[in-house]
Amino acid sequence: MGVGDVSKRILLGRKLRSSQLGETLLPKRVALPVFASDALSSVAYAPDEVFIMLSLAGASAYAFSWKVGIAVAVVMFAVIASYRQTVYAYPSGGGDYEVAKVNLGRTAGVTVASALLMDYVLTVAVSISAGAQYAAAALPFLSGHEATFAAGLVVALAAMNLRGIRESGTLFAFPTYFFMFGILGMCLVGLFQLLTGNLPVVESAEFVIEKAPGYDDELTTVALIFLLARAFSSGCAALTGVEAVSNGVPAFRKPKSRNAATTLLMLAMIAITMMLSVIVLAREMGLRMVDPHELERLRRADGSALPADYDQHTVISQIAEAVFQDFPPGFYFVVSMTGIILVLAANTAFNGFPVLGSILAKDGLAPRAFGSRGDRLAYSNGIVFLAAMAIALIWIFDAQPTRLIQLYIVGVFVSFNLSQLGMIRHWTRELSGTTDTLERARMQRSRLINTIGLAFTAVVLVVVLVTKFLAGAWITVLAMIVFFLVMQAIRKHYDLVEAELAGDDQDKVLPTRVHAIVLVSKLHKPTLRALAFAKATRPNALEAVYVAADQEATDRLLDEWDERRIDVPLKVLHSPYRELVRPIVEYAAEIRRANPRGVVAVYIPEYVVGRWWEQLLHNQTALRLKGRLLFTPGVMVISVPYQLRSSAYAIEREARVETRARPGDVRRGTLPGARGPDDPRRFD
Amino acid sequence: MGVGDVSKRILLGRKLRSSQLGETLLPKRVALPVFASDALSSVAYAPDEVFIMLSLAGASAYAFSWKVGIAVAVVMFAVIASYRQTVYAYPSGGGDYEVAKVNLGRTAGVTVASALLMDYVLTVAVSISAGAQYAAAALPFLSGHEATFAAGLVVALAAMNLRGIRESGTLFAFPTYFFMFGILGMCLVGLFQLLTGNLPVVESAEFVIEKAPGYDDELTTVALIFLLARAFSSGCAALTGVEAVSNGVPAFRKPKSRNAATTLLMLAMIAITMMLSVIVLAREMGLRMVDPHELERLRRADGSALPADYDQHTVISQIAEAVFQDFPPGFYFVVSMTGIILVLAANTAFNGFPVLGSILAKDGLAPRAFGSRGDRLAYSNGIVFLAAMAIALIWIFDAQPTRLIQLYIVGVFVSFNLSQLGMIRHWTRELSGTTDTLERARMQRSRLINTIGLAFTAVVLVVVLVTKFLAGAWITVLAMIVFFLVMQAIRKHYDLVEAELAGDDQDKVLPTRVHAIVLVSKLHKPTLRALAFAKATRPNALEAVYVAADQEATDRLLDEWDERRIDVPLKVLHSPYRELVRPIVEYAAEIRRANPRGVVAVYIPEYVVGRWWEQLLHNQTALRLKGRLLFTPGVMVISVPYQLRSSAYAIEREARVETRARPGDVRRGTLPGARGPDDPRRFD
Repeated sequence: MGVGDVSKRILLGRKLRSSQLGETLLPKRVALPVFASDALSSVAYAPDEVFIMLSLAGASAYAFSWKVGIAVAVVMFAVIASYRQTVYAYPSGGGDYEVAKVNLGRTAGVTVASALLMDYVLTVAVSISAGAQYAAAALPFLSGHEATFAAGLVVALAAMNLRGIRESGTLFAFPTYFFMFGILGMCLVGLFQLLTGNLPVVESAEFVIEKAPGYDDELTTVALIFLLARAFSSGCAALTGVEAVSNGVPAFRKPKSRNAATTLLMLAMIAITMMLSVIVLAREMGLRMVDPHELERLRRADGSALPADYDQHTVISQIAEAVFQDFPPGFYFVVSMTGIILVLAANTAFNGFPVLGSILAKDGLAPRAFGSRGDRLAYSNGIVFLAAMAIALIWIFDAQPTRLIQLYIVGVFVSFNLSQLGMIRHWTRELSGTTDTLERARMQRSRLINTIGLAFTAVVLVVVLVTKFLAGAWITVLAMIVFFLVMQAIRKHYDLVEAELAGDDQDKVLPTRVHAIVLVSKLHKPTLRALAFAKATRPNALEAVYVAADQEATDRLLDEWDERRIDVPLKVLHSPYRELVRPIVEYAAEIRRANPRGVVAVYIPEYVVGRWWEQLLHNQTALRLKGRLLFTPGVMVISVPYQLRSSAYAIEREARVETRARPGDVRRGTLPGARGPDDPRRFD
Repeated sequence: MGVGDVSKRILLGRKLRSSQLGETLLPKRVALPVFASDALSSVAYAPDEVFIMLSLAGASAYAFSWKVGIAVAVVMFAVIASYRQTVYAYPSGGGDYEVAKVNLGRTAGVTVASALLMDYVLTVAVSISAGAQYAAAALPFLSGHEATFAAGLVVALAAMNLRGIRESGTLFAFPTYFFMFGILGMCLVGLFQLLTGNLPVVESAEFVIEKAPGYDDELTTVALIFLLARAFSSGCAALTGVEAVSNGVPAFRKPKSRNAATTLLMLAMIAITMMLSVIVLAREMGLRMVDPHELERLRRADGSALPADYDQHTVISQIAEAVFQDFPPGFYFVVSMTGIILVLAANTAFNGFPVLGSILAKDGLAPRAFGSRGDRLAYSNGIVFLAAMAIALIWIFDAQPTRLIQLYIVGVFVSFNLSQLGMIRHWTRELSGTTDTLERARMQRSRLINTIGLAFTAVVLVVVLVTKFLAGAWITVLAMIVFFLVMQAIRKHYDLVEAELAGDDQDKVLPTRVHAIVLVSKLHKPTLRALAFAKATRPNALEAVYVAADQEATDRLLDEWDERRIDVPLKVLHSPYRELVRPIVEYAAEIRRANPRGVVAVYIPEYVVGRWWEQLLHNQTALRLKGRLLFTPGVMVISVPYQLRSSAYAIEREARVETRARPGDVRRGTLPGARGPDDPRRFD
């Protein structure tokens, strides 16, 4: 096959490419679990937070629990309705960041990006912490070691994602559907028991709750409203993750936008049904729950204290244990599926982070290496960063979802708000360019929906900030500010570099002469090859250069040079301090100084080996030398590689690595592994 | 200044080089502290171990303490006498490794190297653990946190050595002399008190020691001998570090060998005087000491148990506290100087490790990068490795010198033995080549001394192995075997590579044509420069190559290409998966396949920035691309750098780093910083 054929094949791209891309697209029934695990998993902790907040005013305040739940549901519908507009208007999958950037400018975009970055970190921390609680409910020996266990889970997730797990629809579909089946099944059984008058009580039903200090007297209306606001803003944790669908539109089957919008609606209905059912059941079953740091407020009916080792289980664990008291497998099924869905939710952050990183890199807001699709390192850095931040939060807050949730919702609602604001701008701009009445009516309706969405999310953001700022949200705000400033600084740097690099006509002037030097350490195959290659380029001057630290070795080399009749002059640079790099750099710089319009070509013979431990044993000096020569003006550095037999290992390894899946492939609708015709990987 | 001048200056080496080297050499009074801290510091823990071992048979066995001390002293003199032969015979400073390798072959050399590596690790672990004990004696709040404190000290030492501390004679001289002054002063005061009948008792004198299980009855002769052997082999810890002088001969003033031999003798006398004085005083002052893990064997005279928080202090602390009971500054001086000398002893390992590494690298037994004198990375790896191993040991053995000492002495005596054996061979060989009677008599005397040395050290090695193998020495033996195998494997690898690389005449064949491709990402200054440089080399074919992932950017580039009238054809490679590296590598490989006797020259335009965070933001792709192209046969990779303004920072930083001191400079007699005429750095 000649060069022509090859370049043609490369120009056309690989065969079957388009059809294969189609094959990796997700039907709705697979897309739902892929994008829903984050949003649905919040039912595992959001109801708990509502009850914990209300418990401040004693168990009687639980009467408000379902009202709080309905308020959350209303906001949820408003948000979902808004995002349904987004998936039609922005089917490219840029999500909140794109909406804010395009419509509100870069500053808003960077703000949203900061919020999303923090959101990913907290998704991991909260989900894994909640997951560790479920694990402790099922496996009692984990009690008291939740933070260590959670940190271990994060490390394991990070390791899997670094290695590259083949993310597939199936991976998500089964656990997510099992989870829905488990929770809804549990609720149905409970409802049936309620209707037949057989509803059992949960383990904590026998307890009474002491009111928290400050809530002892009859509550004033203001205090009551503040309490309800706190419960509501904790419950709003249920809304996290709904924006995931809007980032994933490209991965849907056609009609992409409509399918995504339908999925969003299904997601909202399932999430709300689950949350409200759990809240109602918990209240009917007499649940009593307080802040785990204030367990002493929980007492037996006779006023006696609970045993010191009392472990307060999550709402779903308690309900499942009571509902399935005669059928333990049911309990274990619900609890283990909840744990798994929480881990999957955390995994979505590991998938989303690199995608956001590559978008930010394209816009010059993150290091450019994050943007190259083929670069595993880009993912690695992001994954390690995410894991480290999440572990730090888990450690600091002792894997307590109740504490972490105080930090969580700020970021989500900042991006909700800017996204809705952007959508309103979007429709206004579209309206100004459209005269068709029907179109205009549709746009006005969309704008109204987004305006309502903005109104709701703005209120929630204010409520969240007011009720949670001191309890932890300030950490999130601070982190967002830091991310914001770093991204702006990176962008500024790239802009400055671009300005400095802009070409002008002077740059086309050719160097007057090429002075080539070939570095010699020994007279072996790589050196001989480098000499041959250097000669083949016919430089104006050519010499071999040897850095001598040891007289004996120098004499040996000079003898061999004569013996082999090598017709390139050999220059010996003495290096009394056994340095290698500095004499060469100085020599190259001097040649250049003697002829400032010429160029010095430094040929470095290198032999390449394939195994990782072999690479540790070789070439460190060549690497360092190349690094230093790059800083010497008027020098070009030529690596002449000689492949040792073992280099084949490296090529094989590279090929293996390249076909591995990368985090987030499924949700972007690209599976780079799905290239060969023998790898159809269909989802239907 | 033209090229000729420069190369002449480089050929001659920097001016003043020899005289400056002379200036960094050490007079005896500085050499003693530089090389003695390791050996002298063992007086801080060796007596303790003797008393702890003897305590197994109750306090009555302390009657043997000074006899054990004398036995150690005899071995010490035999070893010192042997090493005095070595410094005359091998003034190059190769030490035990060189002696074993030259006289007994590579296997013996590698064995000694393994022993020394393990010895360095244990020097750090034991010294720092003992130091932490002294710190706890002076600062009671450290009690119970010795392991954490010790690990922190190791980290601090490693960090300082990574950063590069200017190691100077003064750094060692003051603390070492203060330490000698402190210990010998304390002993003199104690002796005076003894003679005047005013000798106070130490804090533990009121206690009685319960015999350990198994020692309750009257001891049999065999059991007694075994006990004394254990005490003796622990006491032999005092011998560690004496070989340091033989590694440091090149750093001595002339006559180097004689000065080194004299220093050795001084060292031995001081060390033995200190150790025996401490042992005698401790016994006279009624010291009672048991294994810190068996503190319950220590009881009050009335049989009652000690308080649970009783902290057993080291021998020197107890003596110092009693002797200086009316003069607390004396106590603090002795204890703090002892602590400092222990840290200095640990620091010697951080200095010795890289030196040994560079010698091993030169012999192909360690990664070659360890051998390049100018390479800071070589030192960094060694320092981190040493620190990690030492911290692991400190952690595992809870910073208990009593436990660690069980591992310590095996390595030292393995290298003592092989070194003496090597010396005997050396003299035998020398004798066979000499006829001069006087010379022969001298050599025979030396051989006799080394034979006596070998006899002593062999007996000690057997005693150590027998008494300590199960108590921990097996760990050292195992680690030595691992080091041994790794070094042999590295050597084998280098040999194989050398064989594969050996040149033949076929290697001189020139490539028939050069096909140059210039990679283009944007049309900026670096690209224009790369195009100009590539043209200047007049290749047989020249084209620019662009990897297109995005139609819009491609069109923009093509327009600009025309606009600027660039007369190099631009080839566009389409990359449907947004990969960059793979299309280029495949294209280069295809060109080469089309013309197997030609060579492909890939020009990569790079711009270089200077600040570390800027480097994170750039060039990651170029690096990866170069890495991959090196594995493609028949390709040479040409980096054409364009230096941005900020690159100046990197050059400045490099210059700063290069002038920093490197660990071990003083003891090798080289201070690379001492180059300019304005930096004499004299020691006298």
